[in-house]
Amino acid sequence: MVEDALVIFTPSGKRGRVAKGTSVLEAARKLGVDLDSVCGGRGICSKCQITPGYGDFPKHGVKVAEDALSAFNAVEERYDRVRGLKPGRRLGCQACIQGDVVLDVPPESQVHKQVIRKSASERVMEMDAAVRLCLVDVAEPDMHVPTGDFERLAAALEEAFGIKGLQVDIEVLSKLQSVLRKGKWQVTCAIWQDGGAPRLVGLFPGLRETPVYGLAIDLGSTTIAGHLVELGAGAVLASSGLMNPQIRFGEDLMSRVSYAMMNKGGDVEMTAAVRAALGDLTQALAEEAGVSADEIVETVIVCNPVMHHLVLGIDPVELGQAPFALAHSGSVTVPARTLGMPIAPGAMTYLLPLIAGHVGADAAAVALSESPETRDDLSLIVDVGTNAEILLGNKTRVLACSSPTGPAFEGAQISSGQRAAPGAIERIEINPETREPRFRIIGNEHWSDEPDFGTPQITGICGSGIIEAVAEMRMAGILDASGLIGSAEQVGTPRCVATGRTHEYVIYDGRPDGPRITVTQGDIRAIQLAKSALYAGARLLMDEMGVDRVDRVVLAGAFGAHISAKHAMVLGMIPDAPLSQVSSAGNAAGTGARMALCSVAARRAIEAQVRRIHKVETAIEPRFQEHFVAANAMPHASDPFPELSKIVTLPDVSFNTGGDEGRGARRRRTRG
Amino acid sequence: MVEDALVIFTPSGKRGRVAKGTSVLEAARKLGVDLDSVCGGRGICSKCQITPGYGDFPKHGVKVAEDALSAFNAVEERYDRVRGLKPGRRLGCQACIQGDVVLDVPPESQVHKQVIRKSASERVMEMDAAVRLCLVDVAEPDMHVPTGDFERLAAALEEAFGIKGLQVDIEVLSKLQSVLRKGKWQVTCAIWQDGGAPRLVGLFPGLRETPVYGLAIDLGSTTIAGHLVELGAGAVLASSGLMNPQIRFGEDLMSRVSYAMMNKGGDVEMTAAVRAALGDLTQALAEEAGVSADEIVETVIVCNPVMHHLVLGIDPVELGQAPFALAHSGSVTVPARTLGMPIAPGAMTYLLPLIAGHVGADAAAVALSESPETRDDLSLIVDVGTNAEILLGNKTRVLACSSPTGPAFEGAQISSGQRAAPGAIERIEINPETREPRFRIIGNEHWSDEPDFGTPQITGICGSGIIEAVAEMRMAGILDASGLIGSAEQVGTPRCVATGRTHEYVIYDGRPDGPRITVTQGDIRAIQLAKSALYAGARLLMDEMGVDRVDRVVLAGAFGAHISAKHAMVLGMIPDAPLSQVSSAGNAAGTGARMALCSVAARRAIEAQVRRIHKVETAIEPRFQEHFVAANAMPHASDPFPELSKIVTLPDVSFNTGGDEGRGARRRRTRG
Repeated sequence: MVEDALVIFTPSGKRGRVAKGTSVLEAARKLGVDLDSVCGGRGICSKCQITPGYGDFPKHGVKVAEDALSAFNAVEERYDRVRGLKPGRRLGCQACIQGDVVLDVPPESQVHKQVIRKSASERVMEMDAAVRLCLVDVAEPDMHVPTGDFERLAAALEEAFGIKGLQVDIEVLSKLQSVLRKGKWQVTCAIWQDGGAPRLVGLFPGLRETPVYGLAIDLGSTTIAGHLVELGAGAVLASSGLMNPQIRFGEDLMSRVSYAMMNKGGDVEMTAAVRAALGDLTQALAEEAGVSADEIVETVIVCNPVMHHLVLGIDPVELGQAPFALAHSGSVTVPARTLGMPIAPGAMTYLLPLIAGHVGADAAAVALSESPETRDDLSLIVDVGTNAEILLGNKTRVLACSSPTGPAFEGAQISSGQRAAPGAIERIEINPETREPRFRIIGNEHWSDEPDFGTPQITGICGSGIIEAVAEMRMAGILDASGLIGSAEQVGTPRCVATGRTHEYVIYDGRPDGPRITVTQGDIRAIQLAKSALYAGARLLMDEMGVDRVDRVVLAGAFGAHISAKHAMVLGMIPDAPLSQVSSAGNAAGTGARMALCSVAARRAIEAQVRRIHKVETAIEPRFQEHFVAANAMPHASDPFPELSKIVTLPDVSFNTGGDEGRGARRRRTRG
Repeated sequence: MVEDALVIFTPSGKRGRVAKGTSVLEAARKLGVDLDSVCGGRGICSKCQITPGYGDFPKHGVKVAEDALSAFNAVEERYDRVRGLKPGRRLGCQACIQGDVVLDVPPESQVHKQVIRKSASERVMEMDAAVRLCLVDVAEPDMHVPTGDFERLAAALEEAFGIKGLQVDIEVLSKLQSVLRKGKWQVTCAIWQDGGAPRLVGLFPGLRETPVYGLAIDLGSTTIAGHLVELGAGAVLASSGLMNPQIRFGEDLMSRVSYAMMNKGGDVEMTAAVRAALGDLTQALAEEAGVSADEIVETVIVCNPVMHHLVLGIDPVELGQAPFALAHSGSVTVPARTLGMPIAPGAMTYLLPLIAGHVGADAAAVALSESPETRDDLSLIVDVGTNAEILLGNKTRVLACSSPTGPAFEGAQISSGQRAAPGAIERIEINPETREPRFRIIGNEHWSDEPDFGTPQITGICGSGIIEAVAEMRMAGILDASGLIGSAEQVGTPRCVATGRTHEYVIYDGRPDGPRITVTQGDIRAIQLAKSALYAGARLLMDEMGVDRVDRVVLAGAFGAHISAKHAMVLGMIPDAPLSQVSSAGNAAGTGARMALCSVAARRAIEAQVRRIHKVETAIEPRFQEHFVAANAMPHASDPFPELSKIVTLPDVSFNTGGDEGRGARRRRTRG
């Protein structure tokens, strides 16, 4: 009988006895320890490096002798000479166990390594990518046993890695023969497996030492953002975005659905437009990261239901009318090339499941990223965009809805509005005494009243700027609770200027060389409509949950990252909550997309969670309309805002022009 | 306890006891009886009709009472009133078993019905199509349970038909919503299943009463032939063919491979050309049969390895040089749309496996159709085309090779040669006394020396015509065993005319208004090269098998159908065999394609058989060259042709111009 030895792996703590002479890699596989290997244990790829510990380990109850591992063999010596092994490291496939030993697996040798998510929350996620790399030597063709090159490749993969039933698309097959010959019958295969049969999605001649890449794409109605992710370590190598070219067919989702309804072939035009943009974005990301498109082996897309249907080539017409029937609600996996992405020819694209007709895969990605179902406290998660997705929940239950806020929060439909770009006003303060404003613009770290501000070009006001402007106007008594802008006389500042029967507030007058930037009564109405829709959606979920308050509010979306919590609450965009409990999750949808890209376990988790989420349809709910009307006032006509009151006292003014009331109200005004 | 009753199904003879009250359809499923149903047992589709037998059945040991089945219910009565049931028929899903009964399942109610193959052999095959039709009622969308239309369709299919894990392509998904609404939430689904997961490949609103269709395509180097097959009964509704447009890149396979080697992107051009032709052929077949392209739900393609690679978009360059490595040798299943076929959006294409680098899926289809492995006697099966595929085998072993015969047998590279078309000489006889010819042309049932022949346009000589011409010249002593045409003096006819240093034989002189049709010495050499290659391939397989004779010869291919066995043997195209044992299998490759189209069992059978077939590579085998040289003489320099000698005595002439030998030989000539 062969003698055995005790092997303890750290940091997993997995332990067990193996026969002496067993390689560390074999021992790891036997004990279920996560130890990487691309070459299948031939001392080529160096992915299986471990650090043996010697001496006394009282914690593990073991003493490790100097000869617990076999001495360096020729393969290790050659590797160390040519490529260099870090001090203390061994190749797990070469070092054999001779006695009791403690072996540390460094993070870079783990497939399922823990990765810090690059987001405000800094949580960790575990790598569990759908694509792995496998190096194989393929038998050369033999006229007398005329099997195909693919069949011999598949046999080699089965023998070395136990990969059975390999699938392949003809697009990959068409590259196979030249790559095999270029690699002199040694190739690194990118094998994709996500639930079903393994699939050959990429192929590289010889040993590929660098990792492969994936794309996480947040396909919004207005912007398309993408991250190029290194699939080994989960690191983001490049991030880029572009406008969704579908904007020319309609600013918001419903106008695009209308375009498809009114124009035969309109859906096909929009599909072509968004696929072309995905192609452009892919190229831009690959160039930025300096990788070739062939090295990108998988993509994940999150998007709302209309974008989902359009990118898949499905006419979204049913999403424009009750009952808002989705063509397909589950997760979808399709070849990336069918969506216009010029990446590795066999690469697949995974789209997260949709939650409901108005609540998309982007909301599912937020749910994945924020995981309200794991918390005891009640979270309200709001992803603010042209359409707002709202989640409310805790460990007991998670609810979801969407609300048609329109693009006002993004600076569209605002008289001086513009997208967030250099020159746009993004922060604003109004002195409650003088009612004089000062502001900051994107691309300039100084306030406009500071000497170092200089004389930059000031071009307009962006989404977060307009929210601050309206809230500051309300706090400074320029605006009453109903949303009326007072006259110069009522407010006491010449910056309030009459325009017909209403007034506007002048923030900046750059004439004759620059623009005159004002907040008009129409701008206030647009913001009121948007914020009422958002608040009403949140209230509807709170009704369903049977609560009057939430424990925390998370603002998601790229825009959410720039919203001032105080100003948002002054407007009544979100329900009352302690300011310390209002946080930004950054681009949570994008983070969710990256998590799904890096982990098939995350995909299964969100697919299961989406089935459990309770969907609330706002469009047909009479109470939504009631909440919407009541939310028109700033912050609200009836709901109390006790937490807001602790930090801000809003002036009790009214500029209703009926009779003398406006003037009277002006006199009663108090300061916050 | 519920009482039970004995049920006997004919013609299967399957019997068993079921609880009284069980429907006939349920009983059939329980007992494993093949009884069709598209509507899942709701009395809509009428596919489950059976004929009960009443009275005494001593053979089955049962007496059937008049009330053995339940009386007509409302569903059956309505069906009979509206659509009409044949006398004695019942709907299996409605009629319930009340007592012992004998039930006959007519062929049209069987899924796996026996179908007579439309070929010379008239064998039967069993229908086992990959696509079945299923009628379902889909739950309407509900805003409060916002699942996708597809998910509700899949749930309905699972509930009614037990179909689990349904897959769908986005091309089908994009049609789903409109079809569901057109059918008022009742749709007939075409479900394809071939080994793996079931897949939704076609969708029709409401109940589809007509069957769906498939295409069997024999993709040859020169011609592409297609059959449109009704997938229910296996009947061929339309057959059509067109020239392979790749001919402009090279007449034969190797010249196309060369084109790909010499011209960058040449393979892509050829791929595009053949896919366009497949599209044209598909449209032509659909029009001929009067079906819409959407009703064609599957295709099967058989072809040689070069065509296989080119249609799949794989550069065939490796097939042009040893070791003739295939990119993929197993069967291939791809979406039909990727190959340019404009049929049902989800339809799949199945390509039979390849046997070797030079022996393709067309040869596999011949092997499937002719099944030499099921016979005790030794069959030599020759598929004559630009490239000849040769199979030799019996129950013990089957061998395969291919031989590069070139296009001479198809009338190409022949001075007066032309493709088989009206006006082409297809039969010829030469009077051995007068050496005067008479002939028949395609499109005219009379011989040229008959009064009713008239004055048709005579345009050239086709493949079968040139074989008969050369063989008749040999039999009439115009040609010697080495292949030399004698002079007018040597042969004794002015039809032998000198052209430079050789002679030609004038078959027809239509000048000045028509062509002069002759057989030149160059034509004889081209035929000799082709027939030597064919014979050498067959001999090589016979060597491998260790035999000197075969029991039977099967000539396959459209051309094989027109070759006269006697003339072929005079030329020495095929080894000696009793003429009664030389038969034509018609387009056996096309028949094999149809069998695979109609039966997934046939696909599994040929996949397994191809793995068992022993491949012989002619290109590198020195004995091939020896056999080739020895086969140059007509019929052969050394191999005896005892069976041929029994019916034909070939003149022992020699027209070698060295000295007086020719004249002497002329004198020794004898008659057959």
